[in-house]
Amino acid sequence: MAAMTVRERGTRRRDEEVLAAAARVFARRGYADASVQDVADELGILKGSLYHYIDAKEDLLFWLMEAVHGELQAIVDEVAQTEGSALDRLDLYVRSHVLYTLDNLERVSIYYHDADSLSEERLAAMGSLRRAHERFVSNLIKQAQAEGSADATADPRVFTQCVFATIIGTYRWYKPGGRISRQSIADHCARFVLSGVVGA
Amino acid sequence: MAAMTVRERGTRRRDEEVLAAAARVFARRGYADASVQDVADELGILKGSLYHYIDAKEDLLFWLMEAVHGELQAIVDEVAQTEGSALDRLDLYVRSHVLYTLDNLERVSIYYHDADSLSEERLAAMGSLRRAHERFVSNLIKQAQAEGSADATADPRVFTQCVFATIIGTYRWYKPGGRISRQSIADHCARFVLSGVVGA
Repeated sequence: MAAMTVRERGTRRRDEEVLAAAARVFARRGYADASVQDVADELGILKGSLYHYIDAKEDLLFWLMEAVHGELQAIVDEVAQTEGSALDRLDLYVRSHVLYTLDNLERVSIYYHDADSLSEERLAAMGSLRRAHERFVSNLIKQAQAEGSADATADPRVFTQCVFATIIGTYRWYKPGGRISRQSIADHCARFVLSGVVGA
Repeated sequence: MAAMTVRERGTRRRDEEVLAAAARVFARRGYADASVQDVADELGILKGSLYHYIDAKEDLLFWLMEAVHGELQAIVDEVAQTEGSALDRLDLYVRSHVLYTLDNLERVSIYYHDADSLSEERLAAMGSLRRAHERFVSNLIKQAQAEGSADATADPRVFTQCVFATIIGTYRWYKPGGRISRQSIADHCARFVLSGVVGA
């Protein structure tokens, strides 16, 4: 890959600033009630300048969701390249995904709360990305079953959903700065999921 | 408690019809986009007639959430009156709550998706009902720890959230009429949660 020029790096930084501002505004006001004007105000620019980047508010939502997906894909890629048993890799996956969720509450909550506001075509595109991600976790569980370390009588599709629910659920109840550290939450979730998958 | 009169039974049935219609409309159009007119159309009555029941759309949302809470409280009461170990009661609780969720997808999805649209006072009222429900599950986990059947090194507050997430998550991925039966889903969730709480 060619090195980025100074100009490209500047563009990328501005894109990230726009997405971060959109995430804050959508999280605060709710996507349905937020306007492009609100995002422009958050950035301290004119609405017309923001329309250099986007055609409509939905573009910001879609780009945010693409960004979350890309960041989750980086976790999947790292876990896929890690040596070890399927359970070891599931443990790493759960810890990494929980920490990512706790560190990105605004954009993660939009990712799970507002997908229905996407156009049909974009919703379908996000759906197929999510299904690929689910297959990765489902395959880890199937491998653990094949290795004899997970409950082989369970349907891996249902356990995959239980694993996702445990991880994703954290964005609903985690309060930054609370009594339980983010590392402790990642640790609890990983232990809960691994014991759940291993079975009695 | 005095027996209900014919008139009271009629009123109760009509209330339930209004709530069921509101749940269908809110689930289909989204609470933010749905109108009182849409709910009246769904019931086949005039909007003015619906305003005999309510002052504003938010009343329908609040009543729906109260109904869900009441139905969940009935599960809690049944589990509380059941004999057996803490793990046995947790098992019954998870199965009952999952089946309730799968059988009431529309109102459960509104319960978890649209609480933020309530007035501040009503949101606070629902929050305190939810916290009481969480304490019930947290106490079951503490009892299981005291009975020596659950991982005593875990923070019961975090495991409580993992249990809730596993149960509630089902409304996001369950497709009625799919290949996996509702009983099988309840069974998988109960096994996952119990193994998770028991630990390695």
